[in-house]
Amino acid sequence: MNILQTQDTICAIATAQGGAIGTIRVSGPEAITLTDRIFKPVSGKPLVEREPYTLTFGHILSPEGEIIDEVLVSLFRGPHSYTGEDSTEISCHGSSYILQQVMQLLIRQGCRAAGPGEYTQRAFLNGKMDLSQAEAVADLIASTSAATHRMAMNQMRGGFSRELATLRDKLLHLTSLMELELDFSDHEELEFADRSELEDIARQIEHVIHHLVDTFSVGNALKNGVPVAIVGETNAGKSTLLNALLNEERAIVSDIHGTTRDVIEDTMNLGGITFRFIDTAGIRETTDTIESLGIERSFQKLDQADIVLWVIDATCAEAQYRELAGKILPRCKGKHLVIVLNKADLLSSAEPSTDNTTISTDAQLARLKAALPDLPEDVCVLSLSAKQKEGLSQLQKQLVDFAALPDLSQNDVVVSNVRHYEALSHALEAIHRVQDGLVLHLSGDLVSQDLRECLFHLAEIVGGEITTDEVLGNIFKHFCIGK
Amino acid sequence: MNILQTQDTICAIATAQGGAIGTIRVSGPEAITLTDRIFKPVSGKPLVEREPYTLTFGHILSPEGEIIDEVLVSLFRGPHSYTGEDSTEISCHGSSYILQQVMQLLIRQGCRAAGPGEYTQRAFLNGKMDLSQAEAVADLIASTSAATHRMAMNQMRGGFSRELATLRDKLLHLTSLMELELDFSDHEELEFADRSELEDIARQIEHVIHHLVDTFSVGNALKNGVPVAIVGETNAGKSTLLNALLNEERAIVSDIHGTTRDVIEDTMNLGGITFRFIDTAGIRETTDTIESLGIERSFQKLDQADIVLWVIDATCAEAQYRELAGKILPRCKGKHLVIVLNKADLLSSAEPSTDNTTISTDAQLARLKAALPDLPEDVCVLSLSAKQKEGLSQLQKQLVDFAALPDLSQNDVVVSNVRHYEALSHALEAIHRVQDGLVLHLSGDLVSQDLRECLFHLAEIVGGEITTDEVLGNIFKHFCIGK
Repeated sequence: MNILQTQDTICAIATAQGGAIGTIRVSGPEAITLTDRIFKPVSGKPLVEREPYTLTFGHILSPEGEIIDEVLVSLFRGPHSYTGEDSTEISCHGSSYILQQVMQLLIRQGCRAAGPGEYTQRAFLNGKMDLSQAEAVADLIASTSAATHRMAMNQMRGGFSRELATLRDKLLHLTSLMELELDFSDHEELEFADRSELEDIARQIEHVIHHLVDTFSVGNALKNGVPVAIVGETNAGKSTLLNALLNEERAIVSDIHGTTRDVIEDTMNLGGITFRFIDTAGIRETTDTIESLGIERSFQKLDQADIVLWVIDATCAEAQYRELAGKILPRCKGKHLVIVLNKADLLSSAEPSTDNTTISTDAQLARLKAALPDLPEDVCVLSLSAKQKEGLSQLQKQLVDFAALPDLSQNDVVVSNVRHYEALSHALEAIHRVQDGLVLHLSGDLVSQDLRECLFHLAEIVGGEITTDEVLGNIFKHFCIGK
Repeated sequence: MNILQTQDTICAIATAQGGAIGTIRVSGPEAITLTDRIFKPVSGKPLVEREPYTLTFGHILSPEGEIIDEVLVSLFRGPHSYTGEDSTEISCHGSSYILQQVMQLLIRQGCRAAGPGEYTQRAFLNGKMDLSQAEAVADLIASTSAATHRMAMNQMRGGFSRELATLRDKLLHLTSLMELELDFSDHEELEFADRSELEDIARQIEHVIHHLVDTFSVGNALKNGVPVAIVGETNAGKSTLLNALLNEERAIVSDIHGTTRDVIEDTMNLGGITFRFIDTAGIRETTDTIESLGIERSFQKLDQADIVLWVIDATCAEAQYRELAGKILPRCKGKHLVIVLNKADLLSSAEPSTDNTTISTDAQLARLKAALPDLPEDVCVLSLSAKQKEGLSQLQKQLVDFAALPDLSQNDVVVSNVRHYEALSHALEAIHRVQDGLVLHLSGDLVSQDLRECLFHLAEIVGGEITTDEVLGNIFKHFCIGK
């Protein structure tokens, strides 16, 4: 397991800049002796002579004897520490100048500045937690709601790992039954395991993995936001709508740098649910190759969304609807589709008013709906003015209704990590092949191979024997420094 | 000393948002029992049964039994804590969601959210530090350079307090000599203290206070930046020059919200020295009352500055110089004055070139200087183009040369706090009256009154018996929460 060199002692500022307290973490075989070299305890008794889990008051001194700060040092001895190594935590006054000075003193004594997530990575390498638990630490720190906090806490505390361990036991049991059959395959008269019994076990396994894979859409929506694609023709007012939505309720807005996408999307919180809005290029008939590529991407984003907002210019609703209905409607199967008739304000003023009163928007909407040919029954149609910010609350309410995320309890295992989702999907494929093999009475060694593959993918999640440097690097580089 | 109700137990997030670790501080008579109510130690042994200066690992639980976080709790018992009260520090994962949850749990149990600086204020009220030391804590946290750090650290560690204590002893000695004379004033034949001896002691005291008052200009320059006023006529390019300077070297820039001024000024760091640039309204003859007021303010700011940049449009240098020289030059006595001939680029292109080459800026400058009548000898004249950002480095170098702040050693007492400066100035006035009284052979009771006033003002600095709620409120409201 000793993939990385953990011989060196690392240090990092573990708190954000600007608080009353700033904490520096030191971890590694020399953490205590190196801290002692820059630290003068008031009592005179150095850290190396102290009990773990104690606090010591004293001064950080420069080599010239200048007092850099009055600090409290927390002492931990491996394996009873976060990293599993000897560690200290130096609690300073929260001045970035002081924290930088202390870091420089530590580095001059032989510490190395820690990389992102290096403390948690060491905790993993020292067997303090498995990989899925380590990943949950970053999720926990990033959690901004009860739901994301609950998911991360459950995962960090090993809820997911236990579920995987149970699965692993079942798979190993199935494998051993298959191997037994394999070992005695010469004795054709022997039937060590009833194939229907094997099929039953495989079905149970498949059921659990399938359920875990299914939780990802909820987990991902909670963690990264419910994906909402905004599609329509360029002049329909998509960007205006997005800005109006974000300006109205910019409660929690952040940039998500997609790992697989090269676009930056905007998220916002409505009714406690995070939505991730994906603005797309306008869709229209074109012979321009580059523009076609853009439109193709718009459709790909539509495919990734749970909710689709099709923005139509209300002043030419029927034409725009006819033009794109054939392309958009078939792609919205299984998704929530909202047709947004935008620019409703232009409509009311432009309408000829027969009875000298303004036409009510309800009546207007009914007439517009009637004009859209072959409108599917279950499609929600709203009219609003993004520019005048009228009718937005109705759309927001509809988004919250459509999202309808379940309330999670503390013990629900929900997959929210793309890496885990991919490993589980591969495991699911493998177990499907096992099931097929059993039904087709394939030879035990063929089925065993798929079983081993299924085990392999599950082991990937918790970081078994097969975790490579590259995998670890990818996981921990997204952590913050000091964790 | 018990000015504030310190019966209640307070809590605050003491770290900035966004780090790997977040710390919540709890302090007060019930700090340990209240923390115990939301904290479940893994070992099962509650905090109340533990030794002070220990760390305990466990979980923060909601009333419903949900795990909010895995934490480490530091335990302190009064008087051996920062505040002098029983305290705990809960070290959580650095998620603002988690920290808010823990705060809410503590408040539900009966804690009160701490106000700014309330921990340090309690430390002061509980006699853990005097007022000048408490004030140094905020300076220490705000320190951004070796010099400001050194000043704050020395003050926090009581360097200033010790100097004041020595002064106080001398003053008390002088007072007792005076009182003795007073008590036996009926016996006119008795001379208890030689008045020349008293004068000698008073002179020593005056010398020390005078020196401390003098350090303020250095202390203030280090802490708030060397004040540089930019003056000149409106069209001379003052704002362009300021922007050019700030854009060029915007190393450390912050907004200083003046406590006695209603303007926001820009600071920047040049060669390790912080400069505070004060932009002023253009100066010109006017009969407009409001504009006159603005111009009056410009002159006030000029008076506050150590360095004055007088910006003159080089294309009409002589006229602008003549117009304002009478107003500006007399006010610059004892200050560093730089005359900046701006728009030098316009000059070179507009100049008739007799020998078909561009006139060198040196020659140009010499000619311009010659055109300025009655230019004082020691005035520095530079030509530059703020718009083209040409010649700025020369100006920057000149600023650094003029600032010429002394290198502080760790033990130098430097006054950097306006409140201290004002108290010292009052003390200085009082000791001057004492000196005058001694010379004029005023009666002992009159001199004693001035001595007591001097003592009073020095006691104000460390927060003696006479500190009011209002004074404390003013001091601690500028602290950050959690300190």
